[in-house]
Amino acid sequence: MASSQFHYLQSVRVSSPSPLSISTSFDHGRVSFQRKGNCLVYASTNNFNSDLHLQSKVETVLDSVKWDDKGLAVAIAQNVDTGAILMQGFANREAVAATISSQKATFYSRSRSTLWTKGETSNNFINVHDIFLDCDRDSIIYLGKPDGPTCHTGAETCYYTSVIDLLEDQQSGGDKFPLTTLNSLESTIAKRKGELEVPQSGKPSWTRRLLLDEKLLCSKIREEADELCRTLEENEDKSRTASEMGDVLYHSMVLLALKDGKMEDVLEILRRRFSQSGIEEKRSRKTQG
Amino acid sequence: MASSQFHYLQSVRVSSPSPLSISTSFDHGRVSFQRKGNCLVYASTNNFNSDLHLQSKVETVLDSVKWDDKGLAVAIAQNVDTGAILMQGFANREAVAATISSQKATFYSRSRSTLWTKGETSNNFINVHDIFLDCDRDSIIYLGKPDGPTCHTGAETCYYTSVIDLLEDQQSGGDKFPLTTLNSLESTIAKRKGELEVPQSGKPSWTRRLLLDEKLLCSKIREEADELCRTLEENEDKSRTASEMGDVLYHSMVLLALKDGKMEDVLEILRRRFSQSGIEEKRSRKTQG
Repeated sequence: MASSQFHYLQSVRVSSPSPLSISTSFDHGRVSFQRKGNCLVYASTNNFNSDLHLQSKVETVLDSVKWDDKGLAVAIAQNVDTGAILMQGFANREAVAATISSQKATFYSRSRSTLWTKGETSNNFINVHDIFLDCDRDSIIYLGKPDGPTCHTGAETCYYTSVIDLLEDQQSGGDKFPLTTLNSLESTIAKRKGELEVPQSGKPSWTRRLLLDEKLLCSKIREEADELCRTLEENEDKSRTASEMGDVLYHSMVLLALKDGKMEDVLEILRRRFSQSGIEEKRSRKTQG
Repeated sequence: MASSQFHYLQSVRVSSPSPLSISTSFDHGRVSFQRKGNCLVYASTNNFNSDLHLQSKVETVLDSVKWDDKGLAVAIAQNVDTGAILMQGFANREAVAATISSQKATFYSRSRSTLWTKGETSNNFINVHDIFLDCDRDSIIYLGKPDGPTCHTGAETCYYTSVIDLLEDQQSGGDKFPLTTLNSLESTIAKRKGELEVPQSGKPSWTRRLLLDEKLLCSKIREEADELCRTLEENEDKSRTASEMGDVLYHSMVLLALKDGKMEDVLEILRRRFSQSGIEEKRSRKTQG
């Protein structure tokens, strides 16, 4: 943690490497930040007072956490794009301070009695974008982007064992995650794609048919987009809009799967665009031009 | 918890109320389940041996959890549709057993030394669809659908305090959540919609222009859907597909916001369709007809 200690309080908010990073410096409240490479760095070089001011603010935030009798709070790491809960550990004051400064999710190991940064051996760091405290101030979320699989087993998240599967006698081999709806839908489509080579008897699933027939798929995507628009143009009920939007999303995801694309990539693109108002500016220019 | 104890081991997997719930009974492995109203109920009425078999399985699962020296494990409740982390508490053996049986997220209160089911006073239960254990078996996710706001403050989740905001001197008034990308994008669009009445100087944002011009919005949605299809038809790079898919998603979300729809509703629709293979069957019928 030497390097984290060195940077302690110097850099406060992370930004993933992005070719779209264009802003160079700006003010946040009374504290000045500067973008340096891939992260925002507290512009402290020549301002001893600002330095002390930020340091005192971090101390105040850390003071407000309700540490337990061992000086710990629960710390949960969550993928900012997919929403997947990656892992859960414990953090003490120093671990949170190190996470703020290094922007890498850092925990306190109760068994080894030391700080540890996820990724320090595997290089699969979790790049923390923001930290959230709960209403009781005794639970923490590190919201960030993982560099690779988080679990030491190589799984994307540590939570790959479904209790329902266990009760149903199914082996949970690390490929079943607590999938939220979007991730679950993507996983179902990927499964269908993986089965394309396997001959099937009976009526093929709609997803299989779409995957096997690009013309059908594209005509459905255009049709569903049109139907979505017509819920606005023809002033249909909002439940109709939600339903048509579901159709647009599902059919688009089948096309994405066919091209070996991932929803996480789509979401990362949107995050980067919106964090810089990129899409708004780009589109605005495009239309004006 | 009396009623939970009564149902203990009788019902194993929850399913939200859904007009699409059509299946009536089916087998999972060696254990038989039956759909009863809105949940799957272990068909135990006439089979004492199956009863014992399931009970023994639940005990085995609970035995496999690495309870701490106080008999507790961390339990995190997550919204199955949005991915939002709703709250974090602790669970003991009885709390997990009660969650399996009642399908309502149940915790152990360390301060009151009792079991408590989230929602028992507010009626905002968290309807648990599945439970996940981490690789160390000492951390648990209750993945489910909340009936309403989870936090006792009335906020959607308990994690409404951003450390970055605190460091930037901004008040976190309960409206800033650890938003994953999709939720964050929706929140940005909603913000722009809320500002429509406010006169603005300077160039309007692209989102504002779309919100003010339905014709422009619909033409963009149809155009972006077409561009997405062309990445497949013209064999473009998959990064192009992800980018166009981002455009389709963003523009569709602007239309959804204009109709006062919510992404959570869209995702819930998809979850219900896919959990019953509904969309596949519906589409298949539609095309054949």
